[in-house]
Parts: sequence; C-alpha cells; structure tokens
Amino acid sequence: MNYLVAGGAGFIGSHLVDRLAQLNSLRGGGCNSITVVDNLRLGKTAFIEKHFGDPDFKFYNVDAADEEALDKIFSDHKFDRVYHLAANSDIQKSAKDPNIDVHDTLGTTLSILLSMRKHGVKELFFASTSAIYGNKTELLKEDTGDLKPISYYGAAKLSSEAFISAFAAMCDLKVNIIRFANVIGGRLTHGVIHDFIKKLRRNPKQLEILGDGNQEKPYIYVEDLIEAILFLPFDHEGVNVFNAGVTTATKVKRIADMICEQMHLPAVEYKFTGGSVGWKGDVAKFQYDLSKIHEAGWSAKHTSDEAIGIAIQSALREAV
Amino acid sequence: MNYLVAGGAGFIGSHLVDRLAQLNSLRGGGCNSITVVDNLRLGKTAFIEKHFGDPDFKFYNVDAADEEALDKIFSDHKFDRVYHLAANSDIQKSAKDPNIDVHDTLGTTLSILLSMRKHGVKELFFASTSAIYGNKTELLKEDTGDLKPISYYGAAKLSSEAFISAFAAMCDLKVNIIRFANVIGGRLTHGVIHDFIKKLRRNPKQLEILGDGNQEKPYIYVEDLIEAILFLPFDHEGVNVFNAGVTTATKVKRIADMICEQMHLPAVEYKFTGGSVGWKGDVAKFQYDLSKIHEAGWSAKHTSDEAIGIAIQSALREAV
Repeated sequence: MNYLVAGGAGFIGSHLVDRLAQLNSLRGGGCNSITVVDNLRLGKTAFIEKHFGDPDFKFYNVDAADEEALDKIFSDHKFDRVYHLAANSDIQKSAKDPNIDVHDTLGTTLSILLSMRKHGVKELFFASTSAIYGNKTELLKEDTGDLKPISYYGAAKLSSEAFISAFAAMCDLKVNIIRFANVIGGRLTHGVIHDFIKKLRRNPKQLEILGDGNQEKPYIYVEDLIEAILFLPFDHEGVNVFNAGVTTATKVKRIADMICEQMHLPAVEYKFTGGSVGWKGDVAKFQYDLSKIHEAGWSAKHTSDEAIGIAIQSALREAV
Repeated sequence: MNYLVAGGAGFIGSHLVDRLAQLNSLRGGGCNSITVVDNLRLGKTAFIEKHFGDPDFKFYNVDAADEEALDKIFSDHKFDRVYHLAANSDIQKSAKDPNIDVHDTLGTTLSILLSMRKHGVKELFFASTSAIYGNKTELLKEDTGDLKPISYYGAAKLSSEAFISAFAAMCDLKVNIIRFANVIGGRLTHGVIHDFIKKLRRNPKQLEILGDGNQEKPYIYVEDLIEAILFLPFDHEGVNVFNAGVTTATKVKRIADMICEQMHLPAVEYKFTGGSVGWKGDVAKFQYDLSKIHEAGWSAKHTSDEAIGIAIQSALREAV
C-alpha cells in the first residue's frame, strides 16, 4: 500500500508516520510507502527527519492546499490511501483571521478531494474534531444534530466533513473520520501545556490562566489516538464517523497544578483572566459518548490525567 | 434599512427584490434601499430591470465571491442586513465540476461573511437547502443529525451554514437560515419543469424522463417562500434555522403529465432512463417536519401540485 500523509510533519501526523514506518519495517520493509506532504507552518522537519534515509519514505515541503503542487505529487505516486491530518489546529490564532482556517483546514481538504477524484484514489482517513459540535451540554454522539460550531476551526472541519461526504457519494470513496478530543503527548506545537510551561519559564512566580480555570476537557494521549486511527478497517462503503477520546476529563487549573509540581514550583500565584471560556471560540466543557468506537473494539489506554502527565514530561524534555 | 441582496437577479432573489421594492414603495419610498449583487451566471437582468429607475435601487454586475469587489460595495453602502441567495443551485451542472459549488455556493458565503465582519454588518438571511441532510428516509427536522450531503451543492450549503455559525458566534451576528424545499414559480432558470418543456418543444411525441419517474419531492411556490423569508424577525441572538416547504409532494411522472396536459399533448411516449434517482447526487425522496416554522406562524398557501401548476403556466408563458 502507498500512503499519503498530509500534515505528516505535524504533531499528530508525525506520530502516525512513525507507526506506519514501524509497521512497514516489522514486515521487512518494502510493503508500504509513506509520502508526507507538509507546509511546515506548524509541522517540523525534526519530527520526521529520522525517516529521511528510509527508501520507503518521501517528504515534500508542499502546502496540501496548493492544488497544482499536490496534483503533481499524486501523478508521481500511485496512492492507495490518504491520511489527511493537515490543518491549522491553532484555534486562538485563527480567531484573529478566519482565512487561516479557510485555507489551511478547509482548503487542504478540497485540494486533497479534487486530487483523489482525478487520480481515482478511493480510501481516505480524515482527522476531525469535537469543535464541529459547537457549544453543547449533552453527551456528544456521532449523530448529534444542530451542529453550530463557534470557531472558524470547527466550521472548517465541519465543512471538510460535508465535502468529504459529497465526494464519497459521487466518487465511491471509503472514508473513516475520527472526531478527536483534545490530543496531547510528545511534540505538541501549541496549546495549554505548551503555553503554561513557556509562561512559567519566563516568570516562575506567577501564571496567567485564561478564563476561570474551570474549563474541563477530555485529553487523549496521542499514541492511543494513533491506535484508533490504524485500528479502523476500510471494508465499508461511504463514510464512517467515530468520536475518539476518553471518558475522563481534566480541568485547566489541574493542568496548571500538575505542571507546577513537575517543574518543582510550589508557590506559583495563579492570575485568572476570568470568564467561563479561555477565549472566544473556545468550548469550555464537553464530553463524548464513546459507545460507537468502544463497541467497535477500541478504547484509550490512558486517562485524561495520565495523558496530561505524560505530555507535561515530554514538553519539559523538549525545547519549548 | 439598507439591504444587500446577493443573487438578487436570480430566480428566487429577484422575487425577493420585487417584494422588498413593493414594501418600500407602499411606504412612499425612501425607507429602504435595495442593492443587488449578481454575477448573472444564472440570474438575468430581465428579472430586475423594472427597478432600474428606482432611486432606492442599485444593481452591481459583480460576483459576490470576489472579495475585493464586494468589499468596495460594502464600503460604498451602509448595509443593515444581507439577504444571501447567491449560489450555483444547478446540482446537475456541478456534478461534473465540484469547483462550481466551491466557488459559487461556498465562496460567495465566505466573501459575504468576511465583508460583514469587516464592516460591522450584523443581520443576515441565508438561503439553505434540504440537500444538506443527504439521503434520509425519516422526516427531516432542523436538528436531525448525521448530515451526509450527497451532492457538492449540498456540501457547499452545509459548509456555508457551518461558517455562518462560527462568524455569528465570533462577530455577534443575528442570522435567519431557511432550508428550502424545491422552489418553483415564474422565472425558473433550470430544473425539471424547464427541462421537460424544452424537450417537448423539440420533440412533442416523446419525453425522456431521468430515473423511473417515481422521485417525489415537496415543491414550494416561490411567492409562499418569499413570505416566509420576510416573515422571520431578527430579534434573536445567533443563528435560527427553519425548514420551509409544503406537507404535500409531487412525483416527477405527475409533473410530466401536468406539462403534457397544459401543452395539449395527449399522446407523449415517456422514455424512462431508469434507476431510482434522476442523477448522481439527486435525493429522490424527502419530506420535512415543518412544525417549527408552522408554530412560528408561517405556512405555505399552495400545495405542491398547485405550485407545479402555476410554475408550468409561467414557464410556458416565458421563453424557455
């Protein structure tokens, strides 16, 4: 099988590439080829450079939203499956400029779908998000309706799902979509853990916390999520959608406590900016109904707190 | 109030413009201004030229997806509300080229939202569609979930709703969205009535009917729909979504019968192309739960069959 991983130098994408390469090498190599396309806006060469000598691996520093460049890559490879993880993913950044998500999150999807249509590639994995549901108090199920995303990121992901659905119907695609909870682990490029460590290294006495600190979300460890991605079969017609996350959750204030503990900073003063959300477009609290993916046979090995613990360790080790 | 009607020279848009102009003139004129932006790809100058002398009316032959051109128009007028009816709307045409709906249906929405954000315009009406629901057998409610559009048109409209939701949350917009059933009446630019009349004028002995003729949809008379659009207040925060249609429905074969009758062609041989759908991306059958808009106080005055009857008369009168 020949795989294209769009966004393969990013936080989640590079972990997926590691696993795909590992599976290929366990079979003696030569079974699968892995092609990574990444514009390195959030992704980093450092995340994938260990594969550069692998004859089954190829990297293109290309924006997946660039239709012409992507078409050329599709022409040069005979892809069997596309893993699409290219996106902006930094909700706070795009709040200032909606065009970031229009281009990086939706534009990449449209460009990939057009190339798949043209080159007859039939299998697609798409990384979606809890942000498509908007601000809801009920347990979120895959068929929950009245979807009203409150961030440009959520809108661009929901739009991506919409176009994937149409292309699947029109071009007979087989698609797995996973709507990710908050994903953390090694190689984080932004987000709350990243921010807190950066702030505490600048000022170990005081920590500014956006909102009131009671925002509470389920955090999933990236390795658990990669297992979910690789676990889903492509033996169906059309689009299969799954929530993936954990049944536990962690408050922002608890994350701050855990970071201060691991950094051996016992007397940090927290300064809350106030309000129930961290920033406009932030969904302060949500929880998934995970019965669909649990019944299919996957569940996360780490709780939300365990995932946070590992991610903090990684972030402290890595230069942030 | 200063209104922008995007797609105002189109089939539905021009009917809305007529009513807005009529309401303004009933008040003696000068109360409201009406600005139409239309690229005339489906719209026609003939549909709006009767307003050209009206000092409260202004027409721009501009593509609403052209951000720069639209921004200039927003700068020159102080709009209070945007009616966004600009779209491709010809599902069969875009089946051959998904970019048509990406540009004409979604691109117009993004460009309008960016201009509204920049110029602080807060009120938006958006013309959505039953096609966002995809192929479903159940009665369609506004909060029906698992939305899987099967046409690029449906995908572009669902994407538009997604971005409208995010912009509404981020920029404090007041939005009414109506998801239209099949709309018919005078000035149709395409669709089944249009097609059948054209075919019968070419060959009055035989009529090719796409599918098996049993496709059955609720058709709403355009004047009824305009009443629904003008009826919804803008006294809420965020996005209000309504289905609008009729509780009756008409089969494609019945439409053919009615046209043959009105054209005095008693012995037309029907040739069915076969299959349950007219074309790939077509939803053969659907019905709305209309309780939300009925409870709000609006309902259609014409049944599906009555709407078809009027639309056939208009289409025969107009050069098609």
